[in-house]
Amino acid sequence: MSTRPSKTLETFPNPKPERDYVISMRMPEFTCLCPKTGQPDFATLYLDFIADELCVELKALKLYLWSFRDEGAFHEDVTNRIADDLVAAINPRYLRLKAEFYVRGGIYTTVVAEHRKAGWTPAPRVDLPA
Amino acid sequence: MSTRPSKTLETFPNPKPERDYVISMRMPEFTCLCPKTGQPDFATLYLDFIADELCVELKALKLYLWSFRDEGAFHEDVTNRIADDLVAAINPRYLRLKAEFYVRGGIYTTVVAEHRKAGWTPAPRVDLPA
Amino acid sequence: MSTRPSKTLETFPNPKPERDYVISMRMPEFTCLCPKTGQPDFATLYLDFIADELCVELKALKLYLWSFRDEGAFHEDVTNRIADDLVAAINPRYLRLKAEFYVRGGIYTTVVAEHRKAGWTPAPRVDLPA
Amino acid sequence: MSTRPSKTLETFPNPKPERDYVISMRMPEFTCLCPKTGQPDFATLYLDFIADELCVELKALKLYLWSFRDEGAFHEDVTNRIADDLVAAINPRYLRLKAEFYVRGGIYTTVVAEHRKAGWTPAPRVDLPA
Amino acid sequence: MSTRPSKTLETFPNPKPERDYVISMRMPEFTCLCPKTGQPDFATLYLDFIADELCVELKALKLYLWSFRDEGAFHEDVTNRIADDLVAAINPRYLRLKAEFYVRGGIYTTVVAEHRKAGWTPAPRVDLPA
Amino acid sequence: MSTRPSKTLETFPNPKPERDYVISMRMPEFTCLCPKTGQPDFATLYLDFIADELCVELKALKLYLWSFRDEGAFHEDVTNRIADDLVAAINPRYLRLKAEFYVRGGIYTTVVAEHRKAGWTPAPRVDLPA
Amino acid sequence: MSTRPSKTLETFPNPKPERDYVISMRMPEFTCLCPKTGQPDFATLYLDFIADELCVELKALKLYLWSFRDEGAFHEDVTNRIADDLVAAINPRYLRLKAEFYVRGGIYTTVVAEHRKAGWTPAPRVDLPA
Amino acid sequence: MSTRPSKTLETFPNPKPERDYVISMRMPEFTCLCPKTGQPDFATLYLDFIADELCVELKALKLYLWSFRDEGAFHEDVTNRIADDLVAAINPRYLRLKAEFYVRGGIYTTVVAEHRKAGWTPAPRVDLPA
Amino acid sequence: MSTRPSKTLETFPNPKPERDYVISMRMPEFTCLCPKTGQPDFATLYLDFIADELCVELKALKLYLWSFRDEGAFHEDVTNRIADDLVAAINPRYLRLKAEFYVRGGIYTTVVAEHRKAGWTPAPRVDLPA
Amino acid sequence: MSTRPSKTLETFPNPKPERDYVISMRMPEFTCLCPKTGQPDFATLYLDFIADELCVELKALKLYLWSFRDEGAFHEDVTNRIADDLVAAINPRYLRLKAEFYVRGGIYTTVVAEHRKAGWTPAPRVDLPA
Ligand SMILES: [Ca+2]
Ligand SMILES: [Ca+2]
Ligand SMILES: [Ca+2]
Ligand SMILES: [Ca+2]
Ligand SMILES: [Ca+2]
Ligand SMILES: [Ca+2]
Ligand SMILES: [Ca+2]
Ligand SMILES: [Ca+2]
Ligand SMILES: [Ca+2]
Ligand SMILES: [Ca+2]
Ligand SMILES: [Ca+2]
Ligand SMILES: [Ca+2]
Ligand SMILES: [Ca+2]
Ligand SMILES: [Ca+2]
Ligand SMILES: [Ca+2]
Ligand SMILES: [Ca+2]
Repeated sequence: MSTRPSKTLETFPNPKPERDYVISMRMPEFTCLCPKTGQPDFATLYLDFIADELCVELKALKLYLWSFRDEGAFHEDVTNRIADDLVAAINPRYLRLKAEFYVRGGIYTTVVAEHRKAGWTPAPRVDLPA
Repeated sequence: MSTRPSKTLETFPNPKPERDYVISMRMPEFTCLCPKTGQPDFATLYLDFIADELCVELKALKLYLWSFRDEGAFHEDVTNRIADDLVAAINPRYLRLKAEFYVRGGIYTTVVAEHRKAGWTPAPRVDLPA
Repeated sequence: MSTRPSKTLETFPNPKPERDYVISMRMPEFTCLCPKTGQPDFATLYLDFIADELCVELKALKLYLWSFRDEGAFHEDVTNRIADDLVAAINPRYLRLKAEFYVRGGIYTTVVAEHRKAGWTPAPRVDLPA
Repeated sequence: MSTRPSKTLETFPNPKPERDYVISMRMPEFTCLCPKTGQPDFATLYLDFIADELCVELKALKLYLWSFRDEGAFHEDVTNRIADDLVAAINPRYLRLKAEFYVRGGIYTTVVAEHRKAGWTPAPRVDLPA
Repeated sequence: MSTRPSKTLETFPNPKPERDYVISMRMPEFTCLCPKTGQPDFATLYLDFIADELCVELKALKLYLWSFRDEGAFHEDVTNRIADDLVAAINPRYLRLKAEFYVRGGIYTTVVAEHRKAGWTPAPRVDLPA
Repeated sequence: MSTRPSKTLETFPNPKPERDYVISMRMPEFTCLCPKTGQPDFATLYLDFIADELCVELKALKLYLWSFRDEGAFHEDVTNRIADDLVAAINPRYLRLKAEFYVRGGIYTTVVAEHRKAGWTPAPRVDLPA
Repeated sequence: MSTRPSKTLETFPNPKPERDYVISMRMPEFTCLCPKTGQPDFATLYLDFIADELCVELKALKLYLWSFRDEGAFHEDVTNRIADDLVAAINPRYLRLKAEFYVRGGIYTTVVAEHRKAGWTPAPRVDLPA
Repeated sequence: MSTRPSKTLETFPNPKPERDYVISMRMPEFTCLCPKTGQPDFATLYLDFIADELCVELKALKLYLWSFRDEGAFHEDVTNRIADDLVAAINPRYLRLKAEFYVRGGIYTTVVAEHRKAGWTPAPRVDLPA
Repeated sequence: MSTRPSKTLETFPNPKPERDYVISMRMPEFTCLCPKTGQPDFATLYLDFIADELCVELKALKLYLWSFRDEGAFHEDVTNRIADDLVAAINPRYLRLKAEFYVRGGIYTTVVAEHRKAGWTPAPRVDLPA
Repeated sequence: MSTRPSKTLETFPNPKPERDYVISMRMPEFTCLCPKTGQPDFATLYLDFIADELCVELKALKLYLWSFRDEGAFHEDVTNRIADDLVAAINPRYLRLKAEFYVRGGIYTTVVAEHRKAGWTPAPRVDLPA
């Protein structure tokens, strides 16, 4: 695997495909460019997914995020595109991506996109008394 | 787009209308006037919406909030009016506006208004175990 | 409106009765007397309601809370009584009152009372992915 | 009422039995003994209940907790026993007891036990948008 | 019971098998090795379970966690394996294991796995107004 | 000792007068009246002192604070008066009183008054590296 | 006293001029205009002072802050001007004003200005061990 | 070493007596009895010391704290006594003991006692810019 | 002023050079490249300075930070270089720059550099009792 | 540089030896063994130093910490030894090491050790008003 920015999201086989378990990743090192002004934008990304056959490689994910460093990207669009790229790479049962962008114009924007695999339904949540 | 206060909420096409994703904005710079005393009031606004065909421009939203600076506005009324203006501008599938007003008379008031587009229902929430 | 303690809860017309929106108030300045010992008790009150035809005046609410300053009141009873007084005054679609009392005997007590108007049902909650 | 440790949980009539309201108590002063080593254990207890005909006296509850000071008690067992004693004393519609024990062996243990009165069902929760 | 690392999860009889109550454990002292680099990994584990006939011994659990100190273990795999080992040892009605791993490559990963016993369903949650 | 409000600050002998040690008390249950409007004011008081021959009784202090419940008192004045009353009662080597008043007019006011006994100087502080 | 914005800072006599005590005020409702763009700016002000002969009226201070609502003001300049106006009004022994401005251009700016009366020196601080 | 409560504070040789380094211990499991009412009191203790020839054994310290479980002890007195016992056991260059007692009568009390060895002075603190 | 990355730190005259006041800026949007691996690094910068004749322009500072986006820079070196560039641009009486870098190799690094103008000494700090 | 545990602390030349600036590192991944029981211990280390001619390599520091994984080490001793090893490797003007150990026996222990180079004195701290 190279250590250059890359749009390739390498994968590995889900070690426990018979269970709907959750993998979550917090990624505070995302930066791209504002398409209008060309100036840097920053965000923290939060990814949650239930894998099907494949998981995404941590290092590949890091290089993928790096690949946005010199790209122009609108907040709403880039969040959906990253979600779509991840879905294309690992075809998960469920995936949710949240992008918390740094403040612009005195306004703090967050975008959240979900994907559910056709035919998949979540197990009913067990709400423990707490 | 001017940089003067304006009631016009400019929009842009939703880049991913085929998905019900969420856009959230925290806006700590809202101020208007108390209709009874004429004195300044302050609030932090929290907006969450699921766009249909249109999204609201960040800069237009900022100028729109500015337009309340010299207007008298009751807490309950202004929260509903801003929600209505946003609904009129972007006709979203879902919209929620929360206004946390600064303390008056030792009491901290918050108002939350929702809009759901006729015929739209949310996807059942996936409650991840966490 | 006087500025003396008062049991009268003055009201004003709900500016948006066609919408089920929420008004919340945090009131950290409540004090009454313990009926057993006569000593002062303190609490922070949290009120949430969905108005029907009427809202409660902020200033009247403040004077109403003041009216308990010299009254004996048990924790469980006074929370229910304040909820009942508010229901009598504004006849809301929904009302919830929480009273967080200051510690007594090493124990921190909180009481929460709800009222739902006959025939009213809440809109199903939209649980945004977040 | 004495001021000695006591297993007696004195009660008083529920002042508002026609309403399902919640009484919550946080009790950070619980200590007992480890049955294996005889050494002191500590916990914070959190009690939530919906009374039926009876409420529990705050002072009696304090003396009841004190009664465990010289008793050996396993974490899982004592949480259930205290819940059972409270149920026996006030026969509530609903009761939940959480015990957050202090760390032992580098592990922080919490136990939560619930009781629901036969035939009682909770009102559907009103989830306010917030 | 020895004080050496051990894969044996000793158990004791559930003191209240007639009730579905919850036992939760926070375990901040987990460390294993990265299978790719051989370098140490660290995590905080959070376990929640509803016992059936058996509970897990706190001390045995500590020695079990210790047994991973010199083992290579991928994040996704080891979380599922620990969950499986616990299920094999105590056959609980419900079990959830969360592993919060320390940051690697600028990314913070958490994995959550659940087990539900065949034929068991949780009591509907009582959502207290709060 | 009565359980009525009282200006008398009862004392007990300092158990360790040969050492300059610090006694601190946080008192969140202070209320008086605004001299201009007659309406209730609230504050949390923080007291720190180094006793000389006498300490102040906890219960007497509580009754003393209660004695302000029906008195008019300006923020700046009442803080200095309480400090002076404590100095008159226990003649400490050092005393500091901080009063954090609840917000009025959108402004949060805090007043801090100190007293140092003539001829007393503090030991130089040991600033531990931390 | 009017309830219109005003540059007049009304005062009252210091009730305890023989003591160097501290009055602190947190004022989260400050807004002015950016001199370059004309757009609103916001800040929270923190004032600490040791009065000499005079204190500043809380209500006058509120109206004074209001007077900046339609004025252009650079961050560094306005902080010093407010400090100077307060010094001119009450001639304190010591005064410190901190202005925490809301983020602009991704940068959070704070300005702190002090004034010490000629010939005044603070009592050496008593650093309590804590 | 026994595992019974004990007033004996066992020690071990300071492994680095040529350096003034700091050992700090937070001990949240302290309980004794109120001498007036006989009821349990609770506190969290914070110990900081610079050892001379001896350090205190962690396990002995735990048993020592346990020895107060059945003793009556006033807040001010017991803090000084524990400090004195530690000084007698290890004769440190510097020692500070803080006891944060649980709330009584609505008042939260903390006591802090220091000891400095005759002839010892601390190195001047290096205040790193931070 | 352009809106391209730039090493030029434009300035404006200090509006209050007769006072030693403090300007502080928190800048969470700094990124450069690791000179060894070429991969992105991230930091939050904290700047505090006491201006002499000149202040630094907020917008110029933003473009200056942007200029590091494609540069290789070691943590220790880049913090000192930014501090030196700021000193060269505005020749302040005092300047402190703190850079909190994001975690690398499981280690969180922060670097703090100071500059004091020759012949300048700070006013002795007024430590308000608080 | 190998990627095996190593006692060698590799260094690089201080890029700015003419300035007394501070390098700080938070290292939450330290583990060793208890010399009495052989069981794992854990700590978070905090290092602050002012370099002279040399800085310590981040990667070497990571491998050095790893070298304690299979060593027995008392809390007080290991903190001083790591401080000494760092002093031997980089001979800094100033160094401070804090080790926050995980709870044992209900007690949370922290050890802090300092080193100052002979003949070096810190610049007097500039205490900015804040
Ligand atoms: Ca992996
Ligand atoms: Ca504001
Ligand atoms: Ca946009
Ligand atoms: Ca209050
Ligand atoms: Ca109103
Ligand atoms: Ca306790
Ligand atoms: Ca009661
Ligand atoms: Ca660890
Ligand atoms: Ca057990
Ligand atoms: Ca109060
Ligand atoms: Ca006492
Ligand atoms: Ca006043
Ligand atoms: Ca030891
Ligand atoms: Ca960033
Ligand atoms: Ca500027
Ligand atoms: Ca380096």
